[in-house]
Amino acid sequence: MSDLPATVSVREVGPRDGLQNEAPVPTAAKVELVNALSTTGVRRIEAVSFVHPKAIPQMADADEVWQQITRNDEVRYSALVPNLRGAHRALGSGFKEIEVVVSASDTHNRKNINRSTEESLDDIAELVSIAHGEGARVQVIVSTAWGCPYEGDVPVERVVGVAARAIKDGADTISFGDTTGMATPGRVTALIGELRMGHPDVDVNLHFHNTRGAGLANVMAALQLGVADFDSSVGGLGGCPYAPGASGNVATEELIHMVEDMGVDTGIDLEAMIDAAATAERIVGRTLPSQVLRAGPRTRTTPA
Amino acid sequence: MSDLPATVSVREVGPRDGLQNEAPVPTAAKVELVNALSTTGVRRIEAVSFVHPKAIPQMADADEVWQQITRNDEVRYSALVPNLRGAHRALGSGFKEIEVVVSASDTHNRKNINRSTEESLDDIAELVSIAHGEGARVQVIVSTAWGCPYEGDVPVERVVGVAARAIKDGADTISFGDTTGMATPGRVTALIGELRMGHPDVDVNLHFHNTRGAGLANVMAALQLGVADFDSSVGGLGGCPYAPGASGNVATEELIHMVEDMGVDTGIDLEAMIDAAATAERIVGRTLPSQVLRAGPRTRTTPA
Repeated sequence: MSDLPATVSVREVGPRDGLQNEAPVPTAAKVELVNALSTTGVRRIEAVSFVHPKAIPQMADADEVWQQITRNDEVRYSALVPNLRGAHRALGSGFKEIEVVVSASDTHNRKNINRSTEESLDDIAELVSIAHGEGARVQVIVSTAWGCPYEGDVPVERVVGVAARAIKDGADTISFGDTTGMATPGRVTALIGELRMGHPDVDVNLHFHNTRGAGLANVMAALQLGVADFDSSVGGLGGCPYAPGASGNVATEELIHMVEDMGVDTGIDLEAMIDAAATAERIVGRTLPSQVLRAGPRTRTTPA
Repeated sequence: MSDLPATVSVREVGPRDGLQNEAPVPTAAKVELVNALSTTGVRRIEAVSFVHPKAIPQMADADEVWQQITRNDEVRYSALVPNLRGAHRALGSGFKEIEVVVSASDTHNRKNINRSTEESLDDIAELVSIAHGEGARVQVIVSTAWGCPYEGDVPVERVVGVAARAIKDGADTISFGDTTGMATPGRVTALIGELRMGHPDVDVNLHFHNTRGAGLANVMAALQLGVADFDSSVGGLGGCPYAPGASGNVATEELIHMVEDMGVDTGIDLEAMIDAAATAERIVGRTLPSQVLRAGPRTRTTPA
């Protein structure tokens, strides 16, 4: 355990990936959540997505949310976009950091955005070029990176091939998404190893779901390889609307609780993040899956 | 990941540690659960505990359960006992494998059985001697091995000291229990390392709770050190009645789902264990925390 990264950068995705997969909540509640998160010490927040309101009504008020939040200068806010139209909206709203998704599984990509993986990659090439022209950075998220709920296993070579094409076309960073929680630690090691063979220097973010309980075990496997950039969602909000059976993202407070206890600095105040998770739970009105939200940190003792 | 053990031995603790911490269920339901588990391929089942019925009414029918189950010759059944009286009952009922618990935290041990850790170790020495005289094996479970809900951190040296005393007094094997889910992977590595410095050959079982979400990450850390003996509970049944805030054991189907995917053989049929978890859920009448019970195995695809 001695060779873990000294610090990891956490991107909080609750306001976007989380709320996108809950029953719609009022704009004011979204603003409250982003504002709560902005004061936890987290340095990156995926704040909104610019998608068609008919496809994802939960994000129809993206512009209002973005205008109404109290921005913290120490936080990098990003927006997810599904396509060029969404990218134009995000860039027009002033986002300097956008994420675009492509699935390594053709079937999943078609279900998601009605394009083949190759067609999406062509679109992304154009999108990256436009974003760069506006001075924005683009992360390409390769989803179903450890398996597809329709196709099953997706070969590591195919996943890395999709990433490689995006890198060639100018993607600033890559993320691998475990869309329906099909990753296990051995598969994490295999994919990171394969990526680094061809792209030793690319910055990679990992986005795990806890759908089958292995979320934090997968984080550990990646940490041991020196990966130091993870997505997580306050309270464990969210899942994937296109993936039957999928449930929550790795909970941010569970992630930081574990890694901070091992001396890995996240810059995030655990108690503040637990408070934000309680806010998230109140906003969505259902019990969230985070265990640390329930039990509190390991340092919280009871009088004998 | 290449140096993981080829096989791990799983002890299923749902019928005891699980049901002990749920509202009481009928004897027939317990028998049904043990019988379901006995056909999953699991080779060890902690079937009952012999405790005072006033202390733990859930286990008042231990003798009846033990008499009524259909025993599988390929399964080793064990009983947990809190003291000498319980040991006599277990031995009288024909158990050849018993577990006795002592907490590394004095405060927790007093709360649990109203004895200091040292006093319990004295009792255990006598218990081991008696059990050996009857041809039975004894495992000493050192609980609060990664922290106490009252005292907080318990020094690694103290935990290993308790184990060392039990080994000196004849314990056949040692288990470390993460009673309230205070372990993280770095602490697992530290404790196993300290144990092996003085006792390189002792057989050690690990019993993790998922109270703060790190259960499977802790399993991974132990596997990487070659530990190959784990407790888990079907469906994630159970917790610790003496530890405020504690919630479920690591779920057996989550454990085997992860390790089998990495080529580690458990001998257990995953689908049969998921079926047993559904039985457990029906018996206790509440939603159990197992994610694999909800989502199914990663190989279960959906028609596109």
